[in-house]
Parts: sequence; structure tokens; C-alpha cells
Amino acid sequence: MSQTTPHPIDLLIEARWVVPIEPHAVVLENHAVAIDGGNILALLPIAAARAAYAPRERVELGEHALIPGLVNSHTHNPMTLLRGLADDLPLMVWLQQHIWPAEAKVIGPEFVRDGVELAVAEMLRGGTTCANENYFFPDVIGATYRKLGFRAVVGLPVIEFPTAWATSQDEYFARAGEVHDSFRSDPLVSTAFAPHAPYTVSDESFERIRLQSDQLDIPVHLHLHETAHEIEEEKKKSGLRPFQRLQRLGLVNDRLIAVHMTQVTEGEIAACASAGVSVVHCPESNLKLASGFCPAEQFRRAGVNLAIGTDGCASNNDLDMFGEMRTAAQLAKAVAQDAAAFDAAFALRAATLDGARAIGLEASIGSIEPGKQADLAAVRLSDLETQPLYHVASQLVYACNRQQVTDVWIAGRRKLAARELIGMDTAAILARTRAWRERIVAA
Amino acid sequence: MSQTTPHPIDLLIEARWVVPIEPHAVVLENHAVAIDGGNILALLPIAAARAAYAPRERVELGEHALIPGLVNSHTHNPMTLLRGLADDLPLMVWLQQHIWPAEAKVIGPEFVRDGVELAVAEMLRGGTTCANENYFFPDVIGATYRKLGFRAVVGLPVIEFPTAWATSQDEYFARAGEVHDSFRSDPLVSTAFAPHAPYTVSDESFERIRLQSDQLDIPVHLHLHETAHEIEEEKKKSGLRPFQRLQRLGLVNDRLIAVHMTQVTEGEIAACASAGVSVVHCPESNLKLASGFCPAEQFRRAGVNLAIGTDGCASNNDLDMFGEMRTAAQLAKAVAQDAAAFDAAFALRAATLDGARAIGLEASIGSIEPGKQADLAAVRLSDLETQPLYHVASQLVYACNRQQVTDVWIAGRRKLAARELIGMDTAAILARTRAWRERIVAA
Repeated sequence: MSQTTPHPIDLLIEARWVVPIEPHAVVLENHAVAIDGGNILALLPIAAARAAYAPRERVELGEHALIPGLVNSHTHNPMTLLRGLADDLPLMVWLQQHIWPAEAKVIGPEFVRDGVELAVAEMLRGGTTCANENYFFPDVIGATYRKLGFRAVVGLPVIEFPTAWATSQDEYFARAGEVHDSFRSDPLVSTAFAPHAPYTVSDESFERIRLQSDQLDIPVHLHLHETAHEIEEEKKKSGLRPFQRLQRLGLVNDRLIAVHMTQVTEGEIAACASAGVSVVHCPESNLKLASGFCPAEQFRRAGVNLAIGTDGCASNNDLDMFGEMRTAAQLAKAVAQDAAAFDAAFALRAATLDGARAIGLEASIGSIEPGKQADLAAVRLSDLETQPLYHVASQLVYACNRQQVTDVWIAGRRKLAARELIGMDTAAILARTRAWRERIVAA
Repeated sequence: MSQTTPHPIDLLIEARWVVPIEPHAVVLENHAVAIDGGNILALLPIAAARAAYAPRERVELGEHALIPGLVNSHTHNPMTLLRGLADDLPLMVWLQQHIWPAEAKVIGPEFVRDGVELAVAEMLRGGTTCANENYFFPDVIGATYRKLGFRAVVGLPVIEFPTAWATSQDEYFARAGEVHDSFRSDPLVSTAFAPHAPYTVSDESFERIRLQSDQLDIPVHLHLHETAHEIEEEKKKSGLRPFQRLQRLGLVNDRLIAVHMTQVTEGEIAACASAGVSVVHCPESNLKLASGFCPAEQFRRAGVNLAIGTDGCASNNDLDMFGEMRTAAQLAKAVAQDAAAFDAAFALRAATLDGARAIGLEASIGSIEPGKQADLAAVRLSDLETQPLYHVASQLVYACNRQQVTDVWIAGRRKLAARELIGMDTAAILARTRAWRERIVAA
């Protein structure tokens, strides 16, 4: 037998369990992930890894499941500063009398920066490593994610009225192009078009988005069929359901990230499947705003790529992807009237690899496979709350709380260690958050 | 002005916020709770409390909300040892091929004792101070709660077939009487009749329960209208819906704790209101087992007393009343198609005072009022996840995780201090839990 010299690498993470997501529904015991240059080199049994590699750092996770970092596929993270400002109100009262006036008084680069920073801290403490972002000032949002070393797809907003970000359609598109260019070669931050919703975006703007998203090769991130009301309104205006209007405009294709989809026909589900549309399910937001029930299991059975998002903290009121996975899995069963629907393995996949696929990052993140970026989260399963332990996937989805996340890496860099944020000043974040609260309450 | 000597008391808890529940929807700032002999003497501003009392112990909760201990109004706590044993299965496959066979192999006093001990540890770490229990071996269950100083109503099981607990109807009733007698004067443990469900209990047994529950002055804790299937089956047998059958048998009265109620007519809701029936809503269990949607907001509007339960860990899979409150509030809005339905203040009330009322303990627990027992939980709201803080009730229901519970008291005795269990050996509990897992997996 030939003797080989152990290969020097940056990092070896040894875990009691590894949930690679791909292959599907597999849990590996006593496996290690070898990482170098931010990439996953190999996933193999611990003993073999120790023989093969000479890591500069070795991390032992003797009571943990190592999972891909969670992908929050729809959020408005600057709004984390509005968490719980106004709850238990009808949708239009909430928006028009509370959220919009509050935003109008504070929106700007500082609000956006500080909100995203608070959100990143919360997401890391909950095992989330990637956000599909949708808010104004994408330049500031992107710069904040870049500075913090957090992975994100930043939405380039388009809406048919003037805002603090842009005052005309030409300006929305010009600024979108500039922001896209500034992140073109960024290793962590990329962009998507983010037209707000069919009821706030014109046919002309949608046509420009279709052309430019093809040219730039980026997704189109859109609130769609969130409520029955928006469908009725569109039918009054154009005679079409919003989805039909988008079909006519050529937007129903594999770039489309359709968020919410609580009101859908069987034909629309089939059309999503054949066109390669990704649907983002935000179950807690849909419940809390009484928007309706997304038929998540029907989408899954039809072969539609289904991701999970928390929505913004003004509506949810957290960025807890563990809670969102659990709610998604539980609710899908009741809506499908089938306790076997949307199982734990599928919930984990929706919150990781299928999220990555929705936002066009499935080649680089979402599973623990050689060649992918090392975006990882370690979840301690030895707590009373997750004992006894019969099935790792069940425990992660149905019993685990996000506070059991102990360690997080993005592109191989440690962001959370034994629940402490690395390179972020928690006290300063909390102080800025409290200062924003005072400003918002005074306003 | 007269100078009064401060009154010696056992304990003064000073909190940044106190949520007394009664009066409704009130949050007091910088208030203190004076406690002596296990009872709440007064709730008053901190400065006034310091002048009036000379406490032997003083606890300062500068970043916390102090709330009444949560009341888990329906659970099967020995089954905590079966947490996650079998998930994502159709109800009958789950029960008949997994849960019942596993129970048959391990059920007995040791299983019940160890399961309850694990559950008590989990409940205390999540701010729950009282459980409405429903399982076999109520003698062991009651003795375990008594030993651990945890408040519980212990169900006296009645079911129409032989079990490890009793083999004939006469034996079920004889043992029920014995267990009731043994806890008659216990300060923390009381009893209720716990007929399993209409489909497993005969008219004759229900009649005995009606008579004896009147004689003993105890509640009747019953699974009712959990699924559409059980209603169809009853209609085939007796021509009646199960609720109608109970009405004929005289069980629909203010002793009845009706658990689940996912399938109800408007007439049944009205009948619950006029008869004083309490309904226990178990939203996560109902979702996960695809049982249906309890119309919680309709019950609330009709004036029915509505409590919240987690159900057992084999179906939920946790004893997290914070999660259950959040799911109850979110789901009720979607089911009622009204974002203003079932607000945060009501969710807190359902999980405390209305739970206490359901189980007949509203005179002694469920709110922070002078004369009541000091069952309390402190929740730290300074974490990133609950900042900024605009409304305490919203934050507790929509953003808080149970890991933010720091301190818990039952009848004035500290049970959790800075998240450490007092008087319980966590390592020993975990070791026993792991041993049960090995036995159950081997069986």
C-alpha cells in the first residue's frame, strides 16, 4: 500500500451527523467536511478525513447536525427595524396607517444599512446564510451585505410611483443598471430585478424587465397572487388574472421568483411547473396577514421548485427559518388534508437547495457537495428539547429552535462561533436599533 | 405623614414590564410583584414596593417581561419519550403501526415517570408552569408532578378496552377514585376525568363520568371532534354527531374541556358558549396530523372560553407554548380571513388565564393578581431577536422564542434561575432519556 501525505487544507469540520440535502433525505453519521479556499473539497467519514487531510483548523461537533446554511428566499431586511411596530390590524390599515408613514419618515441609506445589519446578526444566529432581498436602496443593501460577508441576492426595485430611491421609470432602470454593475464580480452579492407586484408595475416596465433580465441573466423577484383582492382588482382592470397578464408579457419563465401564490388555479400550478417558475412560500406572513393558504404540497407534487421565505419583520415578525420550515411543513399537511404531505426532508430541501435554485445559486450553495461554497450551519441536538432523538430530519424541522444553532460559516469563513457573532459588534447593533426605535416612536 | 415599617415578605420580583393578563391587554412598566407564602400579595410600582416591603429575596429583571406561568391545557407528557419517533405519516399508520406498538412495549410506571420528568424540564425551560395531563398511570404521573413541585391536573383515564392501567370498566372507575382521593388535598396536583374520546367510550361509562364528576367536582377532559372521520363514524353508529351524543348524555356543561374541535357547526359553537364548555385549541397538532382547522376566532367571538395546548410530543413534537401561542394567533387570522382576529393580548390570555379557567384553576392561577398563587415566568426581551421593541405583547407572541425565558416560579418557589433548572438533575434526565431511546429502538 502506498502511503500518501495528508493534504493541507483550511478547515475540517467533523460532525456527529451531516445532512447534505443532495442526495435527498440522507443523513450521514460521523462524517467530515473538508474545506479549502471557501469551497467544499470532500464529504467523507471522519476517520478517512483525518487520514487524508492536514487541516489548519479542525472543528469537532460531537452532538450536532451540520446542514447547509438556510436560504431565506424572500425578505425585506431593512424593515427589521419596524419589527412589531403594528400588528393585529387589517392589511390596508397596517400598510397605509402604520408601515408606510413610518417608512416615509425614516427611509434612507442609514435606516437601510442599520436594518440590514440587525437582520444579518439575527439571521446568522438562526443558521441562515443567504437572503433574497427586496427593498429600496439596493446599493446600500448590497454594500452592507458585502461588508458583513453575508451572501445575498439584492433586488433592484421597480415600482410605478416615485420613492426615496427613484422618481421616474427611467431612473429606476438606470439605477438598477448601476447597482447591478457594481456587484457584477462580487463573490457574495448578486442582483435580481424586483418589480414590486403586478398591481404597482406597468406593462411597459414589465417589458423592460423581461428584456433586461435576459440581457443581464438575472432573476425577477415578484410578489404574486398574495391576496384574493389583488386578483379581483386586476380582473376589473385588464380582464386577466395577474398571472395571465404576466404570461402575456413573457415573464412566466425560469427567471421568475413568484412570492406568496396563495390564490392559484390548477392551470397556474401546471404552468409554473412547465415554465420552470420558482415559488417562494412565506407561510407565517400569509397566516398573520390573513392572505390565504399557499397550496405548497400541490406545487411540490406538480414538480414546481418551492422555496421558503420569512417575509419582512414588519409582517412576520422574525427572520427565523427554523420556525418557517416547521410552519411550512405543518400547514402544508392541513391544507393538503394529508399528514404524509411535505415531509421533514422536503422542508429542509425547500429551505436550502430549492431556495438556492429559486435565486439562481444552485450551482454554488444549498447542499453539502464537493465543489460548492462552504455555507454551513451546525445545530446542537443534545438539548432536552430535541431528546430523545430518533430521526435527525424530524428533529430539525419539528422540535428544534433556532437558538440551537451554534456555529455558522459562509464561504468557509466562520460567522458564528458557539453562538457568538464573529466580526460584528452586538452591543453597537443593539444601541443603533434602540436609537431607531426612539426616532420612529417620536415620528 | 406616618412612617410605616416595611413588611417582611419572602420575595419581591421587580420587572421592567409586568403583563398581568387581568385587566386585559395591559402592560405595566417598572412594577414589582410581592410574594409571601407562595401567594401574590401585591402588584405595584417598584418604588412603592421597595418602601412597603422588606423581602428576604429580591430579584431584578431589568430587561424582562414578567408574565403568568403558561398553562398547557392539553398534553400527554409521558409520550415526550416518543418525540419524533414517527412523523409525516397518515394518522392511522402513525397510531397503529408506530405509536401503539411502541407504547405497548414500554408502557408502565417507569416510562411514565421518566417521560413526565423530561417534560417538566422542557416545560420549565419554556415558561410553562401547569399542565393538563392525559395519560395512563395517573398515580405515577401525579406523584412525579408532586415530587418535582410542578402544577398539574392529572387525567383519570377511561377507555372501553383493557390497557396496562385497567382491564375492566369497574377497574377504570375504581382506580380513578383511588387516584382522585390520593391527591384530594395536594396543593399542586388535582384531577379530572379523562375519557379518551366519544369513539372509544360507551354511553354507560359517560353516564358514570357525568355522575362522578359532579360528585367529585372535577372537570371532564375529552378529545372531541378532532377529525371529520370520527364524526362520520359516529353518525353511522348512532345517527348523531359526537357533540350531540354528549349533549344527550348530559356531558355538555361547564365541566367539559373539549380538546381539538376542528369540525364544528355554528350551533355547536353557540352550544359551547351557552353551556360554559371550554375548548382547548392545539393548532400545531391539528396541522401536523392534518386533522383540520379549529375556528378559534369564531369560538372567541361567541364568548367560548378558549385555551391552548401543545398535545403530546409524539404528535407536535414539542411542549413549546410560545410556539403554540404564535401558531394559534397566526392561524386564527387566516382561518377567520381577518388580520385583526385573535390578537396578541388574546393569545397570551388563552395561554394563561383562559387555560386556568378551562381546568378549573382560575381562582388560583393564570394572572398576576393579589391572592393568586405566584406562578410566574420571566422573559428576557433584550435579545437581538426581540429588538427593537415597540409592543411587549406583540413581541412575546410574534417574535419571542422560549429560550428567552430565564426564570420561573411555581407557588413562589424558584424552578428555573438564569435558565438553570433548580432541584432537577439535567444530566441524569438526559441519560435516562437516552436509555429509553435505546430500549424503544431495540423493541
